[in-house]
Amino acid sequence: MGPEALSLWKGESTFTSFGVFLLQMGWGDLGVFGEPSKETPNLDQMASEGMLFLDFYTANPLCSPSRAALLTGRLPVRNGFYTTNGHARNAYTPQDIVGGIPDSELLLPELLKKAGYINKIIGKWHLGHRPQFHPLKHGFDEWFGSPNCHFGPFDNRALPNIPVYRDWEMIGRYYEDFKIDLKTGEANLTQIYLQEALDFISKQQTSQQPFFLYWAIDATHAPVYASKYFLGTSQRGLYGDAVREIDDSIGKILKHLQKLGINENTFVFFTSDNGAALISAPKQGGSNGRFLCGKQTTFEGGMREPAIAWWPGHIPAGGVSHQLGNVMDLFTTSLSLAGLQPPSDRQIDGIDLLPAILQGKLIDRPIFYYRGNEMMAVRVGLYKAHYWTWSNSWEEYSKGIDFCPGQNVSGVTTHTQEEHTTLPLLFHLGRDPGEKYPLSFASDEYQRAMEQISVVVQQHKVTMVPGEPQLNVCDKAVMNWSPPGCEKLGKCLKPPKSDPKKCFWPH
Amino acid sequence: MGPEALSLWKGESTFTSFGVFLLQMGWGDLGVFGEPSKETPNLDQMASEGMLFLDFYTANPLCSPSRAALLTGRLPVRNGFYTTNGHARNAYTPQDIVGGIPDSELLLPELLKKAGYINKIIGKWHLGHRPQFHPLKHGFDEWFGSPNCHFGPFDNRALPNIPVYRDWEMIGRYYEDFKIDLKTGEANLTQIYLQEALDFISKQQTSQQPFFLYWAIDATHAPVYASKYFLGTSQRGLYGDAVREIDDSIGKILKHLQKLGINENTFVFFTSDNGAALISAPKQGGSNGRFLCGKQTTFEGGMREPAIAWWPGHIPAGGVSHQLGNVMDLFTTSLSLAGLQPPSDRQIDGIDLLPAILQGKLIDRPIFYYRGNEMMAVRVGLYKAHYWTWSNSWEEYSKGIDFCPGQNVSGVTTHTQEEHTTLPLLFHLGRDPGEKYPLSFASDEYQRAMEQISVVVQQHKVTMVPGEPQLNVCDKAVMNWSPPGCEKLGKCLKPPKSDPKKCFWPH
Repeated sequence: MGPEALSLWKGESTFTSFGVFLLQMGWGDLGVFGEPSKETPNLDQMASEGMLFLDFYTANPLCSPSRAALLTGRLPVRNGFYTTNGHARNAYTPQDIVGGIPDSELLLPELLKKAGYINKIIGKWHLGHRPQFHPLKHGFDEWFGSPNCHFGPFDNRALPNIPVYRDWEMIGRYYEDFKIDLKTGEANLTQIYLQEALDFISKQQTSQQPFFLYWAIDATHAPVYASKYFLGTSQRGLYGDAVREIDDSIGKILKHLQKLGINENTFVFFTSDNGAALISAPKQGGSNGRFLCGKQTTFEGGMREPAIAWWPGHIPAGGVSHQLGNVMDLFTTSLSLAGLQPPSDRQIDGIDLLPAILQGKLIDRPIFYYRGNEMMAVRVGLYKAHYWTWSNSWEEYSKGIDFCPGQNVSGVTTHTQEEHTTLPLLFHLGRDPGEKYPLSFASDEYQRAMEQISVVVQQHKVTMVPGEPQLNVCDKAVMNWSPPGCEKLGKCLKPPKSDPKKCFWPH
Repeated sequence: MGPEALSLWKGESTFTSFGVFLLQMGWGDLGVFGEPSKETPNLDQMASEGMLFLDFYTANPLCSPSRAALLTGRLPVRNGFYTTNGHARNAYTPQDIVGGIPDSELLLPELLKKAGYINKIIGKWHLGHRPQFHPLKHGFDEWFGSPNCHFGPFDNRALPNIPVYRDWEMIGRYYEDFKIDLKTGEANLTQIYLQEALDFISKQQTSQQPFFLYWAIDATHAPVYASKYFLGTSQRGLYGDAVREIDDSIGKILKHLQKLGINENTFVFFTSDNGAALISAPKQGGSNGRFLCGKQTTFEGGMREPAIAWWPGHIPAGGVSHQLGNVMDLFTTSLSLAGLQPPSDRQIDGIDLLPAILQGKLIDRPIFYYRGNEMMAVRVGLYKAHYWTWSNSWEEYSKGIDFCPGQNVSGVTTHTQEEHTTLPLLFHLGRDPGEKYPLSFASDEYQRAMEQISVVVQQHKVTMVPGEPQLNVCDKAVMNWSPPGCEKLGKCLKPPKSDPKKCFWPH
């Protein structure tokens, strides 16, 4: 943060609060990024009042690792949110996962707490659901939401329905107490999450408490849902209904900040944990615009994300930044705004974005694209080098699982893991954002770019100390059978006998 | 036009002038439509001050027929800008074309002239280059530009270089007197075209004359060029440099209108004559965003166009319209603004967009997608039915001519002409703007949509009276050997003996 910006902020009588909207939404889902139906007036307005990041990334093409990265400021391969069960496999935290966020990791809310912040997570935690991984043990003061995805309904025998928590205890389960109609797509969950956010903000404002609100809701994650009022209102079908409801909710939250007069004291960021899941298209799949493929892949469609920073009175309205950004930067940037230093006893991958946001600076930094502990690709400047390519296996593909529907790029969207570590596939993302035209290995441009990239990659690999992998072991016994609070509700289920196994990660 | 809007306009002390920017630029080339480099600040601002059309089309996936349609308000199949040499072939006006715009067609400038307008075309005419087709014989008062594309340089034996006209006479030729460096892509033509526009506007303002300026420049058409100042300034390579220069020029023209105080008396429209040519990608190819394929095809990438209406003080700033629009509507809309009636002795396909622009109304109308005299597809509401699919032939494709690079959609982007007249391929463009997921023939949705569409198509076909095809015959003798004015310049070339043949249209 530049000294000017710092003094600007220090001059305020109250702390700066933070809001992070984290969703599964693709770049192409926002009107401001060219969605042809243009149904996100509130996000578009947020962009016009704030700053649009055009080169912003998530840390992983899948939910759990990205969220762990956002909250720790570290790559999943460092914080343990990866698997070594297979080469270059994506992993997350399904119900039977044994691991979760290690105690040794320092999360953003833990650090903010020391500066007097009240921290709340609304929505999906996804950093492990066993007791030791509970968000209130990792810095959050309040929680309303669920530990896993809202998959289901399950039969409470093979798989229990996912619990919904208020703070320490389960207050019900999806499909049972929190309805989701899989046939019509109706659920009023986004409205509940919205109300939680509005109430939390009001409460903090009353008590003059700085806060960190992490609004991580999941209406656009399959199974997609929307509340009755929004059902059938989008040109885009159910997925669009869900987007419209989220957009409307974000508009209401921002207006609430304005109404309370704390909009100039609240730094808000909107982004996504992975690209839109094209596999669910067209009925439940979003859009990554013209980027290649989607969720689960290390092509741009899997990891380039819509991103908007909003902080009226501080961020110039209508700004656009080409700063290479990453969800991990929200960790470092928030600490910077709170006047805190990032931990010095570990490698932090996130950078402080304030010079980019407040002064329009461009900070040189690479973007790494991982699957498991394999660095699949790296972006340096406008160049992206693929060291490995893989969309998914022939076996999965033949079952109809397609992460790149209608986007076969010969030699790029491969169904076998293709190693290019000697001669990486190189793309110029300015001329070719869709990763369709690899540069000729023989060209001067290739040689020049790879010289620069190789140095970056070598340095990254030499200094890389992977964390203990947390996503290797699965066990049905650890599922959400009897979460705390189940007794009061009469909703405790009997777990099966423990039988830990290697998790199977097909992609 | 609603009576309110009309009186608003009639209340002005001066006439409403018109500016039409017509370029070959894809939907995805504009920042406001999600181009990741966001390098069109002036067009983006034009949109934020005016109205963005999200469902706007050209009348043909190729240049000449689209331009003929814009100026006549009629489909190419009616005004003669098509071929019957082969089934469903795209045709245009290369140097050896014998035909051109028939005298029987009434062009927008011819009609505006009667209402006292001064009309100028700057740039590419493309409606025939033989004497009878000269733009000054079809209503324009002034011309600076060329009759054909700036292909070349030719050797003045097999093919003469394309002439550049000022009004009635050639004043030089491309590559000779008007340089284009094919190696570096440098040419200062856009700057010349810009200056022509600024001078024309100033002159009309001085003489208090209402005007129609048709700025049809071609820097983004292969071979792509930009002037020295813009070369190398884009993240997108030479194509991006050209886009940046056009964007900058449009900004200067709009600012000029403001400076002269006539911005509220000038209705300006920006659009494109066909989708970006993906075949030239990545070095000279633009972007159609997430739409399928590009120029030459009847998929959305070939015919959905960026479109912005701008008329400060009349069009609400920041508006967005889902009105299905077409370049042919510019004919009817301009006449409406000038208080003129469209011709009643012929079928006019363009509609008056003023109710959509000024009152936010949505007018029900279909969009037809033609290749030659074959109706390939039709859009009704959000549904698009393909009666024929074809990208290009296997023969052409095997030579590396690909209008859909990296976008093979099985059964949709076909390399044989596939007839679907009995059971059209149906897409819902809201849920599936990329035309990747045809609706099931057995679904209720398919049945319901096709019932409605069939009525529209039947009515269209029953009432269709095709014009005499103008693009069937080619003859080297009619090339630009000795355009008027060549004597003064010593640039007359001797034509070969006449040898008329059927033109060959491969796509």
